[in-house]
Amino acid sequence: MSWLAKYGYTDEDDNDNLGVDWVLQYEFGDIDQARAITEFRTLLQDLNEAGLRVQVRHGHGEALLVCIRVPRDHLGNLVHQSRIKDWLFGITHTLPDGDETAIADADTPSEEIRGAGITPGFGKWKNVTASFPLHDQEACAEMLRQWNRKTVLTTSDLDAIRALFGEKVLFQPGRSLVGYIVAFYYAFIHCYSLFLVVPAGLGILGWLYLGPYSIVYGTVLCVWCIVFVEYWKIREADLSQRWDVKGVGRLKVNRKQYVWEKEVKDPISGQVKHVFPGWKQFTRQLLLIPFASVASVALGALIVASFASEVFISEVYDGPFKGYLEFVPTVLFSLSLPAITSFLTSIATRLTDYENYRTQDQYDLAQTQKNFVMNFITSFLPTILTAYVYVPFGKQIVPYLDILRRTGFKADIVSGQKEFEVDTSRFQQEVIYLSMTAQVLSFGEEIVLPYVKHVLRQKWQNYRDRKAEYGRKRTHSTATGLFLVDSPEEAAFMTRLRSEAGAEEYHVEEDIMEMCVQFGYLALFGVAWPLVPLGFLLNNWLELRGDFFKLTLECQRPPPIRSDSIGPCLLGLDLLAWLGTLSTAAIVHVYRGPISEVRLSSLLLTLFVAEQVYLGMRFTASTALEKIFSDTIRREEASRYAVRKNYLAASLARNSPSSGSHGSPNGRTRHRVRFNDRVNVYSSIEEDPSTDDIPCPTTEEPENDVLRGSDREAQFWSAHSGDMADAGVKLIRALSTAKAGDGVKSSKEA
Amino acid sequence: MSWLAKYGYTDEDDNDNLGVDWVLQYEFGDIDQARAITEFRTLLQDLNEAGLRVQVRHGHGEALLVCIRVPRDHLGNLVHQSRIKDWLFGITHTLPDGDETAIADADTPSEEIRGAGITPGFGKWKNVTASFPLHDQEACAEMLRQWNRKTVLTTSDLDAIRALFGEKVLFQPGRSLVGYIVAFYYAFIHCYSLFLVVPAGLGILGWLYLGPYSIVYGTVLCVWCIVFVEYWKIREADLSQRWDVKGVGRLKVNRKQYVWEKEVKDPISGQVKHVFPGWKQFTRQLLLIPFASVASVALGALIVASFASEVFISEVYDGPFKGYLEFVPTVLFSLSLPAITSFLTSIATRLTDYENYRTQDQYDLAQTQKNFVMNFITSFLPTILTAYVYVPFGKQIVPYLDILRRTGFKADIVSGQKEFEVDTSRFQQEVIYLSMTAQVLSFGEEIVLPYVKHVLRQKWQNYRDRKAEYGRKRTHSTATGLFLVDSPEEAAFMTRLRSEAGAEEYHVEEDIMEMCVQFGYLALFGVAWPLVPLGFLLNNWLELRGDFFKLTLECQRPPPIRSDSIGPCLLGLDLLAWLGTLSTAAIVHVYRGPISEVRLSSLLLTLFVAEQVYLGMRFTASTALEKIFSDTIRREEASRYAVRKNYLAASLARNSPSSGSHGSPNGRTRHRVRFNDRVNVYSSIEEDPSTDDIPCPTTEEPENDVLRGSDREAQFWSAHSGDMADAGVKLIRALSTAKAGDGVKSSKEA
Repeated sequence: MSWLAKYGYTDEDDNDNLGVDWVLQYEFGDIDQARAITEFRTLLQDLNEAGLRVQVRHGHGEALLVCIRVPRDHLGNLVHQSRIKDWLFGITHTLPDGDETAIADADTPSEEIRGAGITPGFGKWKNVTASFPLHDQEACAEMLRQWNRKTVLTTSDLDAIRALFGEKVLFQPGRSLVGYIVAFYYAFIHCYSLFLVVPAGLGILGWLYLGPYSIVYGTVLCVWCIVFVEYWKIREADLSQRWDVKGVGRLKVNRKQYVWEKEVKDPISGQVKHVFPGWKQFTRQLLLIPFASVASVALGALIVASFASEVFISEVYDGPFKGYLEFVPTVLFSLSLPAITSFLTSIATRLTDYENYRTQDQYDLAQTQKNFVMNFITSFLPTILTAYVYVPFGKQIVPYLDILRRTGFKADIVSGQKEFEVDTSRFQQEVIYLSMTAQVLSFGEEIVLPYVKHVLRQKWQNYRDRKAEYGRKRTHSTATGLFLVDSPEEAAFMTRLRSEAGAEEYHVEEDIMEMCVQFGYLALFGVAWPLVPLGFLLNNWLELRGDFFKLTLECQRPPPIRSDSIGPCLLGLDLLAWLGTLSTAAIVHVYRGPISEVRLSSLLLTLFVAEQVYLGMRFTASTALEKIFSDTIRREEASRYAVRKNYLAASLARNSPSSGSHGSPNGRTRHRVRFNDRVNVYSSIEEDPSTDDIPCPTTEEPENDVLRGSDREAQFWSAHSGDMADAGVKLIRALSTAKAGDGVKSSKEA
Repeated sequence: MSWLAKYGYTDEDDNDNLGVDWVLQYEFGDIDQARAITEFRTLLQDLNEAGLRVQVRHGHGEALLVCIRVPRDHLGNLVHQSRIKDWLFGITHTLPDGDETAIADADTPSEEIRGAGITPGFGKWKNVTASFPLHDQEACAEMLRQWNRKTVLTTSDLDAIRALFGEKVLFQPGRSLVGYIVAFYYAFIHCYSLFLVVPAGLGILGWLYLGPYSIVYGTVLCVWCIVFVEYWKIREADLSQRWDVKGVGRLKVNRKQYVWEKEVKDPISGQVKHVFPGWKQFTRQLLLIPFASVASVALGALIVASFASEVFISEVYDGPFKGYLEFVPTVLFSLSLPAITSFLTSIATRLTDYENYRTQDQYDLAQTQKNFVMNFITSFLPTILTAYVYVPFGKQIVPYLDILRRTGFKADIVSGQKEFEVDTSRFQQEVIYLSMTAQVLSFGEEIVLPYVKHVLRQKWQNYRDRKAEYGRKRTHSTATGLFLVDSPEEAAFMTRLRSEAGAEEYHVEEDIMEMCVQFGYLALFGVAWPLVPLGFLLNNWLELRGDFFKLTLECQRPPPIRSDSIGPCLLGLDLLAWLGTLSTAAIVHVYRGPISEVRLSSLLLTLFVAEQVYLGMRFTASTALEKIFSDTIRREEASRYAVRKNYLAASLARNSPSSGSHGSPNGRTRHRVRFNDRVNVYSSIEEDPSTDDIPCPTTEEPENDVLRGSDREAQFWSAHSGDMADAGVKLIRALSTAKAGDGVKSSKEA
């Protein structure tokens, strides 16, 4: 991989971030100069008030770059506060030492900037067009170097990603590990690829000995899908504990756009919470159903139309330009898809806004859910159409497409009188395409193309800047000129800074979604060609490295978003494993023999049985895996137990020296609990809990405690004074009739 | 309800338990007298060593009753210890006050007795045939009186049950509420009955306007079932929090029979745990599958045979004694069922023993699971056979039963040449029978009959005892005689004690199972007759009170088993709701029109669609209910937060006075965290966490913290000294081209 060599040539100094924690880009090309000046002054004032250090430099074109540094003392306190907060919310289980020196809510520089009231791209900060930390190039290079030396990543590699894309300032020696969504993505692709080895190996065997549409291979594939999804759920929980992020979502700050209905003070913890009723949110979420329907119809119609016209041209049409015309539907489809998708996305965004989520996390989750619906349709519908409509029903449907002839059009441009024949291998060809060519194409489209574009654009902008600079140099005062020209020491750094400011944002959800779609192809159509998992496995080896390359060299460094899961795609995986079972059963049933012999009732029976098997298998897999990997759950319990145990020890230690002052004359306070011997079940419930635990002076002595009750009670317990064992023995002798005669016994007794 | 009046007549004093906490019954009828004496001496010695007070009285026949009292001081400490333990395991969230005065593991008298090494009915204590607390008759009577005044129970009634069947000694004023499995049963039947009001009301409408097998009514019924099950899950979690038992299972002591493989010391909490590997247990649990198969075949064959012969006799046979012979199969079935069931139960017990569970809870749960399988088959299979085999296929199958005629037997005892006609209403008749007659019969069988039996037996035993006593009186010494004759003050109490010792144990699982089976009838067959839920609702009104009567007057008071759920039946409810949807769809499809017109493919399609609707509905219901009732989850989080907050406050308070001694010369220790500006992502992970949080003396001052980095870094941050806002403004003026000409600006600047 020659592009990696790039790292070798870079100067050590160029990789130094010069202590810049965060960068904001302020663009003023579209607005009035006076307004720009006012806005910028407010921005800097807000940053100063938040106690941040800034340096301003010019960016590409009409843009300023504000380099931000959080003073180290301030930051240290932030980190400490953040740790305490984690501990309070039960996300970590070891209380950090040290006392409280300040009250700070912010967690990381990114939250600090939000804490300063600056929300990039929103409201009055619409012109703050980028907000990002700088890449740690050296660490990235080191990691890629390490990865190139090995085939399989280890957990410590994952920990390294977690550490790298956790914010630099947040991790110091001994800082307990913190998980970020980027690290979860790599953990997922890693786990998924390792799992892929099994069906890839079996696929080779299947390809050699079983051929496509094999029942055995299909069953194995379905079981594999279910087991993988269930395993990943446990793995995710495990990682979220290893990285101390379990339940981190509830700790997040409110979104600025969040509209709460009432303020609730928690009776137990005393926190004030801003609440928006759950049922209201759920009602609003129900709008997902009409949205999904509209999206399905819109995208579905587009796909069906392009599919139908493609079939028409390739199978029915026989006129001039056939060779070119065949590509027209695909081209039209590709051209119109972005427009429709972006229209649907804008509706989705509006819906998500309306659903009113408290945290950015939940908001992103809901948005991803909707994207998932759209992605699902565009990714799977074409192949589904081929598999379940074109091949089985093509013979009945395609002649209807032949409108030209039926409308009496010139007969020589439609293919003669010959009977139309469905190309039954078309489905398999599509699956092969999906698992090989499409993966390579998408790699190029996703990683290579944007990189080339980014590099070229940077070169062009640098050239333009130099020209403009040259022009301006003579017309400005020396003071201004100093700002316009980079000092030689900074020049390389500033070039990199400008390049990163102009780079795309990295959306980890898109990469996760891509893997989900790949899993979906395997689950839904994998049975048609046993080598599909092998293709995916090879692709993922490259994809893992390519995505890392994209993340570090093509995109802005993502802000560190703590997360304990790969998000809503998990639900998608569940759904795909379920649909996959049904689809595999149906494909095997339909394609094994001649398609014309398939009967609807037997197909339905197959599907019905497959579904029951799926449900049973899923239940078994989740039960078994939970039992086998129960360590994870046990570990969490133990941590909680430890917190309480420490607290108990602390509170006992606190009580014991001061117990003398609590008014108990003897050194050891004997804590006594009152008893009601007869309980009024109704009244005892309402009784005030505060009366508990007040040592109540009781008059009785321990020895005669039974006397406290009624006289009859005392009589009962003091009756037959003497050894009760002897009394029992006497009774046994008197009563026993089984082994010896009554008379013998009684005479002995007498 | 005249039987309730009984309470009115009892003397106040008769209800007094004379301070008896627990009773053991020792029977020696089957063993050697010498051995009995040795065993009994050991028993009393063990009890004495555990610090318990005892009184011995004679029971019915050859039995001794040992009344046990836990001294109140000892008990107080036990209660305190138990509270601390609850708190440590996160089951309650408020730390009880007071210091540790003793180390006791036992939780309640029942555990105390186990703590004394006595496990009734197991090993050397095989002859300890009963072990129970005494009923609190007054509280029970009060509760029944309250219930008779109202139709609908409230949550405070449930709290009262919980309080009553929690052990008396465990609740004092202010004791936080504790939930017991009995209380969960009542909460379940109460919740279920309230939910039944909806289908009962709709059922009346359906009965008047829609008739049986209505699509609308069937759909409503299925949705109701799903919603109920999902709601109950949330309600259960809510109650387990209200009653402070969430996760109580893990706190239980090990069973004596538990065989652990290794001892693991938890690295975090320092507890030593005896572990048996999860995967091994799961492998053993897989034996459930062959067991379920064998049970299905055995019970299924029995049911099919009895069903077939009944059909044969009623429909084909026409010989002598037809009227009597018709009942023969049912009688034979009823007679052989207990034998088969008890055989299967013994296998099930062996399996459960082999599965090696750590706590009694888990053991009971596994056993209940197996009982559920058997119950499921015996309860539902007959009706399933009628609905899905007899009615649809009767016409094809019944003639085969006609072996008599085909083997050339005398033709006049089989019904003539007339064509066999299936009685299509038979299914509906069975459903009506199940929802009305069967419920009444089972009520009688379960509650009235055992009560009558119990009363009669007590009377008979009292009579025999009196006779025996009269005979013995003259043959024994005065000392023994004193033991043989109850003192007049104790007489009534001892009668009651003996009666309770002779009563049956109460198995709450059976009552829960009965309700599950009822729910199953409704889910599976309810659509056949819209009045089914109404019948169940009426039955449950009575059942609730009858069960309470049984619990308090017929059975021994159950030992208080803390629990946070109704147990494995929850899984059963899920299963029944799922099967119910399929069954309802199938019944509506088959029975709506003429049965002969039903086609297999359309039936399968209906089932397939119904299953998808079920899955979707269940997902929606659980999501919606979780969102709506999210308070429960939030409340638990808040409690945890509170614990940690208190701890934090405590540890800060502890630190602040002692900080002076920690070697910091200034009063306030400034806690400083070290930073690595450049992070080696690999090495930082392995670093020793103990280096964290050690205040490290840094040499730099806060003001010039940026100087710590490289020279270039210092240069960057000190460049362009002066107001950065001004610098930005200059840059904006210099760079902006959009609104004003470049020349104008630059000349101004100059």
